Amino acid sequence: MSFGQLREDVYRANMGLVEAGLVLLTWGNASGIDREAGVFAIKPSGVDYDSLTPADLVMVSVETGEVVEGDMRPSSDTPSHLALYQGFATIGAVVHTHSHYATAWAQACREIPALGTTHADQCYGAVPLCRPLTAAEIDEAYELHSGKVIIERFAEQGLNPDHVPAALLPGHGPFAWGKTPAKSLENAIVLEEMARLALDTQALSPGIEKLQPELLDKHFLRKHGPGAYYGQAKK
Amino acid sequence: MSFGQLREDVYRANMGLVEAGLVLLTWGNASGIDREAGVFAIKPSGVDYDSLTPADLVMVSVETGEVVEGDMRPSSDTPSHLALYQGFATIGAVVHTHSHYATAWAQACREIPALGTTHADQCYGAVPLCRPLTAAEIDEAYELHSGKVIIERFAEQGLNPDHVPAALLPGHGPFAWGKTPAKSLENAIVLEEMARLALDTQALSPGIEKLQPELLDKHFLRKHGPGAYYGQAKK
Amino acid sequence: MSFGQLREDVYRANMGLVEAGLVLLTWGNASGIDREAGVFAIKPSGVDYDSLTPADLVMVSVETGEVVEGDMRPSSDTPSHLALYQGFATIGAVVHTHSHYATAWAQACREIPALGTTHADQCYGAVPLCRPLTAAEIDEAYELHSGKVIIERFAEQGLNPDHVPAALLPGHGPFAWGKTPAKSLENAIVLEEMARLALDTQALSPGIEKLQPELLDKHFLRKHGPGAYYGQAKK
Amino acid sequence: MSFGQLREDVYRANMGLVEAGLVLLTWGNASGIDREAGVFAIKPSGVDYDSLTPADLVMVSVETGEVVEGDMRPSSDTPSHLALYQGFATIGAVVHTHSHYATAWAQACREIPALGTTHADQCYGAVPLCRPLTAAEIDEAYELHSGKVIIERFAEQGLNPDHVPAALLPGHGPFAWGKTPAKSLENAIVLEEMARLALDTQALSPGIEKLQPELLDKHFLRKHGPGAYYGQAKK
Repeated sequence: MSFGQLREDVYRANMGLVEAGLVLLTWGNASGIDREAGVFAIKPSGVDYDSLTPADLVMVSVETGEVVEGDMRPSSDTPSHLALYQGFATIGAVVHTHSHYATAWAQACREIPALGTTHADQCYGAVPLCRPLTAAEIDEAYELHSGKVIIERFAEQGLNPDHVPAALLPGHGPFAWGKTPAKSLENAIVLEEMARLALDTQALSPGIEKLQPELLDKHFLRKHGPGAYYGQAKK
Repeated sequence: MSFGQLREDVYRANMGLVEAGLVLLTWGNASGIDREAGVFAIKPSGVDYDSLTPADLVMVSVETGEVVEGDMRPSSDTPSHLALYQGFATIGAVVHTHSHYATAWAQACREIPALGTTHADQCYGAVPLCRPLTAAEIDEAYELHSGKVIIERFAEQGLNPDHVPAALLPGHGPFAWGKTPAKSLENAIVLEEMARLALDTQALSPGIEKLQPELLDKHFLRKHGPGAYYGQAKK
Repeated sequence: MSFGQLREDVYRANMGLVEAGLVLLTWGNASGIDREAGVFAIKPSGVDYDSLTPADLVMVSVETGEVVEGDMRPSSDTPSHLALYQGFATIGAVVHTHSHYATAWAQACREIPALGTTHADQCYGAVPLCRPLTAAEIDEAYELHSGKVIIERFAEQGLNPDHVPAALLPGHGPFAWGKTPAKSLENAIVLEEMARLALDTQALSPGIEKLQPELLDKHFLRKHGPGAYYGQAKK
Repeated sequence: MSFGQLREDVYRANMGLVEAGLVLLTWGNASGIDREAGVFAIKPSGVDYDSLTPADLVMVSVETGEVVEGDMRPSSDTPSHLALYQGFATIGAVVHTHSHYATAWAQACREIPALGTTHADQCYGAVPLCRPLTAAEIDEAYELHSGKVIIERFAEQGLNPDHVPAALLPGHGPFAWGKTPAKSLENAIVLEEMARLALDTQALSPGIEKLQPELLDKHFLRKHGPGAYYGQAKK
């Protein structure tokens, strides 16, 4: 069996979704890509997390979307992951969940505003809300277009997926991503807390719109980019 | 002792309610039916889950409502289960709880609108709210009429109990059902999350009414019926 | 050491408060009375639950309020318990907590309306809110008057403490009681869920006022009094 | 390695933040000071709690802000702790978290009003909200000024840090403090519950402003100062 390390990392990200309380039943899936080999590993569809092993992961070609290794059907959301890997060249992993608070914002058809430094530490501005799919898109290739509208939204707004690591599909839920499976899991965890904080913040101050812009810059940039000074120096 | 497998399955569904956090103290009960034998197994009334065993379950005739096997009184809600088995010929199991969020919607006397694909994956449209019982119905046979108003509501609205696996009794709480005890437990778990999601969605967008109809169809039908493609192929 | 069984029962009720998530740090206390001996056992003040033992409980005279056995100071709320035992002749145990949802209603200076059968199963009508203490009462004997205003409120409204097993002090929190320490613990647990359900119900239907009266009667009376038929027959 | 007891106490306070559910990932930090030696111990920046040991803590001079012992970078929030130790001469420990409910109030740019005795037991009046930092302050020395605006706010309002053990930074989150690391941890735990209680209280009674003043005095003073009578007598 090939891609041992990738399978292990993606397996851990999938199990991490459960441990972090982001999935109910079998909802949710994580994938990770080997850009050189042109394949990504993804959770099989509808399989219990309890019985999942690294060997169960399905390997899919990022060029064709075909299964290249694995006995089971890949997640029904595979075409969404595919669209994200094709559209965002710098990302290395994708997570989809119906995590409670992020899903509530998606169902409410609202972007998640950046209201605090907790949000700014991880995400440089609001978590965007995509447009609804058309009836034709849903009919033709629902899951593929679910990924494509994310790419479309980022292009329209000039957003950088390395700075804004998540998006919401209206009436559906969130996608998150990162450089590695572990980082995409972390982004999904933080997204959920951003969403929960924003819900309670709006309950206390309904008119509030966004964080002081200098604080947004300060918090994002002290953790990201050349001037970052949070954490220990990389060796 | 007869009906060993049915007792085991119903026992597991009852214990699953506790593990899923859907019951407090001794509230809540699950039952399952053997249609050929014409009997269903149900939790005894007011018994602690800690000491419950498969042998404690009470076997009740679906024709007469009489106990046919068992030393303890069946759940006080037994006539509600009976009415559901009599009225919905295709269901195989019933669950009643006072799970928090579904009960809040029932107490608020509101149906749970379908606001997202999480809901659509499991339930084809709103979770209906039944009419209040009359004083005469409460006085005469409260628990039996509690089941009958669910049947009445589905008939009035032309709902299919295989597509909409739950209903709310106003001021009281939810009933859920399914083909098997395990599936009725799953439906009760998902119902609770639908209810919690809808509460928070309405807090964020008070005017929101329902999910885009094409998304409702897409999500329900990709998991149910002849065109379903979620999960692994049945062998 | 005397009153071994009473100490054991009261100890278990105190620990049960922690297990049920009703207390934070050392807040909260349970007591239980031996009516024949005229003494009640109560938790010592500010002691960690981790190190509490039945022998630490302090025995207090219900006539004089004096400590009759024990090396530690009794709970600072002891005079409130005393007032309840003196004023409600039929109760056998008292619990005071700052459990989250009941305390939110108390801080909001609102009674908890009976909005559902979950409430009606345990409490025959709204959980009453007492009047505020006067400055003179607070100054003179704060904890004693905290208990006395509960007695006053029940007398004014003609409430029966065996039917309504709890009350709220405005700006403070709840007291609950029952025939035994185990029952008063159960009443405190159910009170908390009643309060949480009523909060979410009001968020969904702000104008809602009370449960259909026939349902209130039906649910309370099927669990209490001569016509009760919930649970197993007492032997 | 020096300051063994201080390291142990500060280590336990840091781990206590995790156990109390006040931190997500690596967010949050606790410190404690040895006033005689003029140094404080603080958590290193961005280190997992799982692998933290007392020896990892960094010792910092309270006069210069320089590291005097330790191999790792101190928390990026170290200058905020420094400002608090310099400005509040009587405190012995500081805790910073993004605990959910306190952070929601900070993001909502609202002080936490004293609405109940749970609050009054620990904090003598509202938890104050500081002014926003200016762009120049954020640019020049963000973390240092984050501490200084707390000192400024207490001076303006004549607040005593021994009576009001916490403050909120708008758009950011809370700081709490106490005489010892254990006490600052306790204050952070209670702050979170005060914030959660106040959120739900306002949902039930939106216009409510503050607790009856006599109750605020009574509850604070029965636990603090010369007339205190809560807990066991100190030996």
